[in-house]
Amino acid sequence: MKIVVDAMGGDYAPESIVAGVAEAIKEFDVNIVLVGIEDRIRAELKKHEYPGDRIEIAHAPTIVEMHEPATASLRSKKDSSISIGVNLLKEEGYDAFVSAGNTGAVVAASTIYLGMLNGVERPAIGLVIPTLKDFAFLIDVGANTDPKPEHLLQSALMAQVYAKEVLGVNNPKVGLMNIGEEAGKGSVFSKETFKLMEERVVDFNGNVEANDIFKGEHDCIICEGVMGNIVIKISEGLMESAAALLRREISKSPIALAGAFLMKSRLHHIKKLADYTEYGGAPLLGVNGIVMISHGRSSPKAIKNAIRATIREIEHHILDVMTERVARTAI
Amino acid sequence: MKIVVDAMGGDYAPESIVAGVAEAIKEFDVNIVLVGIEDRIRAELKKHEYPGDRIEIAHAPTIVEMHEPATASLRSKKDSSISIGVNLLKEEGYDAFVSAGNTGAVVAASTIYLGMLNGVERPAIGLVIPTLKDFAFLIDVGANTDPKPEHLLQSALMAQVYAKEVLGVNNPKVGLMNIGEEAGKGSVFSKETFKLMEERVVDFNGNVEANDIFKGEHDCIICEGVMGNIVIKISEGLMESAAALLRREISKSPIALAGAFLMKSRLHHIKKLADYTEYGGAPLLGVNGIVMISHGRSSPKAIKNAIRATIREIEHHILDVMTERVARTAI
Repeated sequence: MKIVVDAMGGDYAPESIVAGVAEAIKEFDVNIVLVGIEDRIRAELKKHEYPGDRIEIAHAPTIVEMHEPATASLRSKKDSSISIGVNLLKEEGYDAFVSAGNTGAVVAASTIYLGMLNGVERPAIGLVIPTLKDFAFLIDVGANTDPKPEHLLQSALMAQVYAKEVLGVNNPKVGLMNIGEEAGKGSVFSKETFKLMEERVVDFNGNVEANDIFKGEHDCIICEGVMGNIVIKISEGLMESAAALLRREISKSPIALAGAFLMKSRLHHIKKLADYTEYGGAPLLGVNGIVMISHGRSSPKAIKNAIRATIREIEHHILDVMTERVARTAI
Repeated sequence: MKIVVDAMGGDYAPESIVAGVAEAIKEFDVNIVLVGIEDRIRAELKKHEYPGDRIEIAHAPTIVEMHEPATASLRSKKDSSISIGVNLLKEEGYDAFVSAGNTGAVVAASTIYLGMLNGVERPAIGLVIPTLKDFAFLIDVGANTDPKPEHLLQSALMAQVYAKEVLGVNNPKVGLMNIGEEAGKGSVFSKETFKLMEERVVDFNGNVEANDIFKGEHDCIICEGVMGNIVIKISEGLMESAAALLRREISKSPIALAGAFLMKSRLHHIKKLADYTEYGGAPLLGVNGIVMISHGRSSPKAIKNAIRATIREIEHHILDVMTERVARTAI
């Protein structure tokens, strides 16, 4: 098993990426190909101890910056770590690509170079989010901004496969994120999608309102890309604001400061529960290859967890299972 | 000045509504018409002291339940507190309608019975949300689920008027909620809306990502109804989940419990900052009348604050100012 990892992707690359890879290789039975600027990767690798024969380097001289327009970057930087990394998946023996780099560029490169899975028309990014019970798989969080109802159906089917094979959920229940719980709520798009899901998705649980997704009553929550992106951005923004407010309020009172000190370990535990990186990266589903997108601010642990999830995808032949599932439910 | 208040709307009606009205009438120079089941309103009124000549009752025998389908309820319950209340606005001397009842029914009744403001094609619900700096006015949070770009332009213009006249913000800056900050990001709809806003809205500040809306750099944040609804629902859901998690974690440790006790007053302050009801209700803009929607779980204070915001709308002749502003910027 050989996983290609973008050494140059993300805000803390290559340090954080290489450190995560060095941890992963000690923990998992996997070979890694680090793709990026060779000298810089070698310099980072020197800081770690690891079984040297299981890490290779594939040189890629350029880097797609985090805020670069995605499609333009593909044209102008054909030798970036993202382009070269994705293209390696087309060679025999390379099983998956992991990147904490520019999400748009990873989506575009994967879609263009790998093509789509049979029966799937658009890519979708899934993300494991924490809930009060355990976790849920939210899809799409931003790959497809103008979907049709059938794209959401395809995402739902892929999500169920991912939830079962990678996250270990039996008979994953699917909810459609909507503005109300009752059937017949929401936009024309939502109504059409609801109808399609009701007809085609086993264990379809109906609409789920946004405030209920954290309750944990649905294993897979399906929404269009802009909506999913807003959900994770709002969650991030709100949590950051709440933390900033908390610090501001605590600083006003020595008694509250003492209280915060006593609560520290429990607050830390909550922070951990709310930490998406615990669950690995965000799989890019629908393309004809296993691609995992890690958060731009990925820590070494996040990279290691992303590699772990990727290994499960490979072991469970997830592309074959998804293709079969989608074909079986084809419209 | 005479404000019609739906006595039967919301989860705690009529108790909470009547209590809020009794408070409002002591604090503000206003007359109130309570619309709803007369006997029940009289029974509640007996619990309070207030200047009796400034409260009237308009009997409405039926109630639209909170989860009843909106348009059907209008047809079957023409004598509900919502229908009768909205219709009173068409009589001379009645200035505004406040309801904590079924949002869909209030929107439908207002749109049908009052009609639209000149130059405005669709209604939109605005909501004041707390930010790290102060507050922002988010619109639309759910009135219009299938808008066109020009509807968002109209909402932006109305929002600027509301922010200035009611919230007291000079030269309110407008942001378009989108999946990325750069122009040219997002769906086809977002791109078209951006272009329109750039051409027509004074103080248009460009796109704002969902995680940045709480930073307080925009006074008015414009989005389509489904998106805005998701934002407030996610915020509610996340805050409830965070509180549930906090309680669960604290209960595991006596030390943390002691810490929470010490932090109590500060945590309470944060809760207050995050409490939408502090700012009054959510104005329904675009209809040819002043209509304020209060949260279904409105406390007496929330009702009082909603009445306060409504008074400002009346005093500042907001319908005239909006009509004039929209006409001036007509496409």
